[in-house]
Amino acid sequence: MSSSTPPSATTTSRPAPETTPVGRALQRIQREHPNLSTTVAAIKTLTECIQISKAATLSELIKDLEAQADILKLFRHQNVAIVAACDLFSRFLRDSHHDVFNLDATKERIIAAGNDLVDKSDETRAAIARHAAKHIIQEDDVVLVHSYSRVVVRALIHARRENTRFKVIICEGHAGRGRALGHATAAELRAHGIPTALIPDTALGYVIDTVSFILVGAEGVVQNGGLVNGLGTFTIALVAKSASKPFYVMAESYKFVKLFPLTQYDLPFHDPALIDVSGSDASSSRLPGADYTPPPFITLIVTEYGAFSPGRVADVMIAMTH
Amino acid sequence: MSSSTPPSATTTSRPAPETTPVGRALQRIQREHPNLSTTVAAIKTLTECIQISKAATLSELIKDLEAQADILKLFRHQNVAIVAACDLFSRFLRDSHHDVFNLDATKERIIAAGNDLVDKSDETRAAIARHAAKHIIQEDDVVLVHSYSRVVVRALIHARRENTRFKVIICEGHAGRGRALGHATAAELRAHGIPTALIPDTALGYVIDTVSFILVGAEGVVQNGGLVNGLGTFTIALVAKSASKPFYVMAESYKFVKLFPLTQYDLPFHDPALIDVSGSDASSSRLPGADYTPPPFITLIVTEYGAFSPGRVADVMIAMTH
Repeated sequence: MSSSTPPSATTTSRPAPETTPVGRALQRIQREHPNLSTTVAAIKTLTECIQISKAATLSELIKDLEAQADILKLFRHQNVAIVAACDLFSRFLRDSHHDVFNLDATKERIIAAGNDLVDKSDETRAAIARHAAKHIIQEDDVVLVHSYSRVVVRALIHARRENTRFKVIICEGHAGRGRALGHATAAELRAHGIPTALIPDTALGYVIDTVSFILVGAEGVVQNGGLVNGLGTFTIALVAKSASKPFYVMAESYKFVKLFPLTQYDLPFHDPALIDVSGSDASSSRLPGADYTPPPFITLIVTEYGAFSPGRVADVMIAMTH
Repeated sequence: MSSSTPPSATTTSRPAPETTPVGRALQRIQREHPNLSTTVAAIKTLTECIQISKAATLSELIKDLEAQADILKLFRHQNVAIVAACDLFSRFLRDSHHDVFNLDATKERIIAAGNDLVDKSDETRAAIARHAAKHIIQEDDVVLVHSYSRVVVRALIHARRENTRFKVIICEGHAGRGRALGHATAAELRAHGIPTALIPDTALGYVIDTVSFILVGAEGVVQNGGLVNGLGTFTIALVAKSASKPFYVMAESYKFVKLFPLTQYDLPFHDPALIDVSGSDASSSRLPGADYTPPPFITLIVTEYGAFSPGRVADVMIAMTH
């Protein structure tokens, strides 16, 4: 174990993030609060880390939390959502720097900021849902949605409660290994009396001409206004573009993340061995759970601050950090 | 049962085509000869119908065969492939009209024409495979294929035998009810040592930038040069167009069919109740097994007569019938 061990070897010998204390805490929070988005669950996890931290100085505390965040960032599933949470948390930390001589007060303040975001997350999602229900989902629309998104389901149910009559086509969202979260969306929408058709992902081209617009959630929104979301989102965006259908993204502003991918393959979770040729089903397991949709494919991004074009994301991010 | 019974009611009371003698014959032939395309299997079925027909005159024979063909045309699965077979067979019939006074000789001639097409179908497919292996599949290519196509698999194996080194990405082709024929393609290609990655259909957009071109088979090629093929083909075509990737179709000329759809929803098997809102999984079962790709999405159609652009299909069809 000399210091010249290459970084890749170090990475390999690291325990899986799911088995670490902080990883287990995140998974417990996700189980206990299934309604929280991954970003909010990760914020809650880091808030807990502060509460139990034994750090005696601010610099120790920051070091401690950075180490915890680094572990969380190794999660492949919903990776960008977690990176967004860690970014946000380090902003909370940074904003508290001036109080270096009162560690307890600083901890209190960061915990309060974290809890505040967690507590308000439901209202944030509701605000986006209200906006979409009022300005986007109209009478007789046929809305195409992908897989499962909490904020999209919330918006559709809100629109239904406002007595808008519309239909929803759900792409199953097969992502390998039998997972297809579209079934959960169908069950929830049908329970609320929304006419719903669940289609295999292959039928996307077949139905696109019957669709009014596409409505998707976000795992993260990157600095150039592009979208990171569940695998298959970019396929839908390409098809929507060819068919000239509006493509709307719903995202809480805490999902904005300091990443600037230039291509599909610039995201942290990309595996360069994309085409695996060894096993019978190995390729699927190497594919990420999310893909990247560049800004030209996005019509509008709906946040709790209103809807804007992807080009304005960078401005909003700067405004948020000041 | 008055004569004023509306046509739709008549259709509903008809037995499912699969349970009729001619329908059962088709399914038996498909089981016994899994290597035959559906069109060729349907030709073989109609040839058998002539052999067992008790018709005493040519007009009775034609009436009999038309009735059998009408039943076959009710198959929803591979519908256009069967329509192509029935079209071709009625051409065989028509070309024999002049010999009205010798029924046995006419029957012999039609049977010979049918058998000839069946016997040559393997060589026809081989000719297309050779053409594609020589002119389309090049060293270091990454070929994207969809679900399962006999002629595409044949071409890839042929190219491999010619020592071309290339990789194949296979879209699973989930078409509802658990069917995903891409797994069969993966197994066959791997058995021939072709490096192969099987991906969920949602990953199409994610991988498209790594692909050299798309290679698909055909259930039928319509008069305007458009393609009818397994559900998901049009989704791939839309994505390929957005990503500026060539889209090649391999089709035996007997798959050319006298249909002229203007939209996705003009094909005989289209169910207007596309968005079903009643059952939990009813929508998938209403979706057709195939979709329609309009000519602007197709780069070249490779037939046993060589490769040409979709715009030339109508000319070729006229030439074939004279």
